[in-house]
Amino acid sequence: MRLTQPFVSVADTFPARIACIDGPIRRTWREHRDRVVRLAGALRALGARHGARVAILARNGACFTECLFATWWAGGAVVPLNTRWSASEIVHALGDCEARILFLDDAFLPMLEEIRACADTLTTIVTLGSAGAAGAGLAAYEDLVAQGHPCADAMRGGEDLAGLFYTGGTTGIPKGVMLPHRALWYNAMAIAAELGLDREAVWLHAAPMFHLADFTSNTAIALVGGCHVYIPAFDPEAALAAIEAHGVNSTILVPTMLARMLDHPGFAPARTASLRRLLYGASPMPEGLLRKALGAMPHVRFFQGYGQTEMGPGVTILAPGDHVLEGPSAARLRSAGLPTIGCEVRILGPAGDPAPRGTIGEIAATSPGMMLGYWNQPEQTRAVLVDGWVRTGDAGYQDEDGFVHVVDRLKDMIVTGGENVFCAEVENAISTHPAVGAVAVIGIPSRQWGEAVHAIVIPRPGAAVTQEDIIAHCRARIAGYKCPRSVSFRAEPFPLSGAGKVLKRELRAPFWQGLDCGVA
Amino acid sequence: MRLTQPFVSVADTFPARIACIDGPIRRTWREHRDRVVRLAGALRALGARHGARVAILARNGACFTECLFATWWAGGAVVPLNTRWSASEIVHALGDCEARILFLDDAFLPMLEEIRACADTLTTIVTLGSAGAAGAGLAAYEDLVAQGHPCADAMRGGEDLAGLFYTGGTTGIPKGVMLPHRALWYNAMAIAAELGLDREAVWLHAAPMFHLADFTSNTAIALVGGCHVYIPAFDPEAALAAIEAHGVNSTILVPTMLARMLDHPGFAPARTASLRRLLYGASPMPEGLLRKALGAMPHVRFFQGYGQTEMGPGVTILAPGDHVLEGPSAARLRSAGLPTIGCEVRILGPAGDPAPRGTIGEIAATSPGMMLGYWNQPEQTRAVLVDGWVRTGDAGYQDEDGFVHVVDRLKDMIVTGGENVFCAEVENAISTHPAVGAVAVIGIPSRQWGEAVHAIVIPRPGAAVTQEDIIAHCRARIAGYKCPRSVSFRAEPFPLSGAGKVLKRELRAPFWQGLDCGVA
Repeated sequence: MRLTQPFVSVADTFPARIACIDGPIRRTWREHRDRVVRLAGALRALGARHGARVAILARNGACFTECLFATWWAGGAVVPLNTRWSASEIVHALGDCEARILFLDDAFLPMLEEIRACADTLTTIVTLGSAGAAGAGLAAYEDLVAQGHPCADAMRGGEDLAGLFYTGGTTGIPKGVMLPHRALWYNAMAIAAELGLDREAVWLHAAPMFHLADFTSNTAIALVGGCHVYIPAFDPEAALAAIEAHGVNSTILVPTMLARMLDHPGFAPARTASLRRLLYGASPMPEGLLRKALGAMPHVRFFQGYGQTEMGPGVTILAPGDHVLEGPSAARLRSAGLPTIGCEVRILGPAGDPAPRGTIGEIAATSPGMMLGYWNQPEQTRAVLVDGWVRTGDAGYQDEDGFVHVVDRLKDMIVTGGENVFCAEVENAISTHPAVGAVAVIGIPSRQWGEAVHAIVIPRPGAAVTQEDIIAHCRARIAGYKCPRSVSFRAEPFPLSGAGKVLKRELRAPFWQGLDCGVA
Repeated sequence: MRLTQPFVSVADTFPARIACIDGPIRRTWREHRDRVVRLAGALRALGARHGARVAILARNGACFTECLFATWWAGGAVVPLNTRWSASEIVHALGDCEARILFLDDAFLPMLEEIRACADTLTTIVTLGSAGAAGAGLAAYEDLVAQGHPCADAMRGGEDLAGLFYTGGTTGIPKGVMLPHRALWYNAMAIAAELGLDREAVWLHAAPMFHLADFTSNTAIALVGGCHVYIPAFDPEAALAAIEAHGVNSTILVPTMLARMLDHPGFAPARTASLRRLLYGASPMPEGLLRKALGAMPHVRFFQGYGQTEMGPGVTILAPGDHVLEGPSAARLRSAGLPTIGCEVRILGPAGDPAPRGTIGEIAATSPGMMLGYWNQPEQTRAVLVDGWVRTGDAGYQDEDGFVHVVDRLKDMIVTGGENVFCAEVENAISTHPAVGAVAVIGIPSRQWGEAVHAIVIPRPGAAVTQEDIIAHCRARIAGYKCPRSVSFRAEPFPLSGAGKVLKRELRAPFWQGLDCGVA
């Protein structure tokens, strides 16, 4: 159960079929494999061997897929970094996982010097772009591919570490989720089965590839021998143009991307005529948007995925047949669907025992896609991975027909435009401002992002601070999407629970009054 | 990656949906799970614990599925026995694997005393039928289910042994193929993905369930939460009646079964209206029969599976879209299709290196479905499992589009009506007849069975022996399907190779002249 096996099988079976389309680049599976095997040889020569962490900070592109398979072929584990992170967040992750090699896309060259200066475990930074690279510890991607000596597959698989995926944490410090080959392999197989992918699949990488939602399609497309199509980042016109030009039939989008595509002046259903499967997820889907999408693209089968990095990520899926708009089954549309093939879901009561059907409790899941644990975080691992189950931190219930309804989050977290923002992390950043006495961060409704980050600040006595001050302070410290979009100020203390915790439910209530969508 | 996980997940998710339909029996997933868990408790009480071999000699039925999952739940490994074997073959297998418990169907009660007397590792024989059982070492199935105390899942999985599947051997002695949970789990996942099975799948168990071809549907249906429908053994009218009565949409048949169904006076396409997927395999499909089937049932998607017990069994699959009757792609219809999702296939040249595309060589395969080896046969294991690849013993080539064409068998084996008959085993039986000086067994063309077993005997000088003598001698020793259907006699010695081996190709030639189908 190794991730290089489907890759090599497909390249052997379909050497002349197209594997990757990236702008003007079109490569066959033979060419794709040859590049990967040479890049793997170069990585070995750079010291990437069994278990070595190889990080990737890049927009979408054929290079991304090549880096993944070359790292696995060389025997290493990939660390896909969030492209919206600040340099200090990137440096933290690189240091945490002791990455040796970093692949860096042109878009992030402005961060190069800060990363070089601070990430002291790195031995090599490989620049992906045409900008090239010179200097100690720098290498140019195409040089490595051109000069690398093909090496033998390291044959890592099963429980060997395949990837470290950083996710926010309730403590405010991102944690590295350790996923072995077995977990990524299972998720690829499950998504291929659920979506009915086959060698005719043409997948558009429009959502960010570092995120597990789209990441899984790298391995799933290798499993079925389909074709990858890339756009560097989501843009409604670029997505529509790629679908039209390359006969894209499969993709994943987060709801805000789908909304932007449908609202785009250049949108016409005919431009999506080749599309057959659209997986959406990673944040709540407003029902109105879903109805609009189903109406505008009746030729597309919609799938909703609900998951979690810790599950690699599949937990449940709402199949096309359950996208019912009218009648008694229409309530399913507001659910997250049924457990993914091979995944087991339970709703746990307060004592951790299975709750009776229909009762709200914490959603727990187990499957072969489950993580090994958090990198160097045994305590956090023990808190989430209990008796072979992942505690998702989401509250929900299972209805009589088995559909899982997510009703709330038990974690103090905001989902905004498909990204998880842990409130503690934003609160940590804001609290370092000298004028801030106390702060609480909550999610408030946003038409565009589902939820938006909002900070409530109690200034220190006598201090003067504005919304702009707080936001600027955050921008220097954390990723843009984590920064508050708005700040309100109050003089009175926060409402506290008996245990002295801020009662965020009370802080959120005035913003959400009259809205029933909340988090789902 | 344990086989009980999808089972319990489905029973949790769909407790009220129908799991099994067997004659008048209809059981929900809740009822199915409850019976399995109680039967598992009873098996534990009978001593079936980690790794214990639990054998099953039974026709198709809900009991068969229950026995499998109960054995896994208890922690044991299943040994499904060939229902066409003679008592002595069964006793040999039971002894070889040191089975402790045997489930025995009413149809095999005539063998009960011989098995009891000879299979000395058995501690309990559980009779499945209503005939009941009394006496030391006997137990009645329904009593165990009724009285068993539910036990906790033994949580075996991954590389733990899940099943031993006996297959003939070139040495003439059946070998037990050891398949771990990982292998059976992968094969279930692969077949669900390839066939597009989902919770609406209603599977007819018409082909024998002990054979891996149909066996895999037990786990695949549990994975997707579909419904099992059983008929005790294949019969064209029973199969058509079950399809009609229960809305069967998925099944596997061997070509002879398909031929019998189409030739049956009661066949009408409308009776198969609910059928959506028909997997066929286990023996060569005459092209005329396939064309007839495609014409008679245009609403059915046909899949050809090519596999091997050692691969658990999936190797390649010919998808519905590749069932092309006209044009340049029509040659695909004579191929075995493309490597199954997650499976790697190579054609090996004489030195064991990959042969160039288009060249005939030995077909080798590797996938997560691969066996651990042969039970207690390290030498035979080393001969077949080489560097992580299974040598199939079949000769073939891969065409430019990746399709695998099986052209010959390198093993001295006959495939008759979906069963593998190893010539050495039949030759061993015949050679014990006092009048036989030398014998060679070959496959000759048969309209009904694909190939038929034929023996060529050189009588001892002065001895008189007839075809009937030889067949009767075999019937007392080996399964009916292994016995020769015809015998010819010759006086001159067999043609020999330089190494002194009988040149069977020369013996076969006169029978196959003018036929190009041969083995495929």
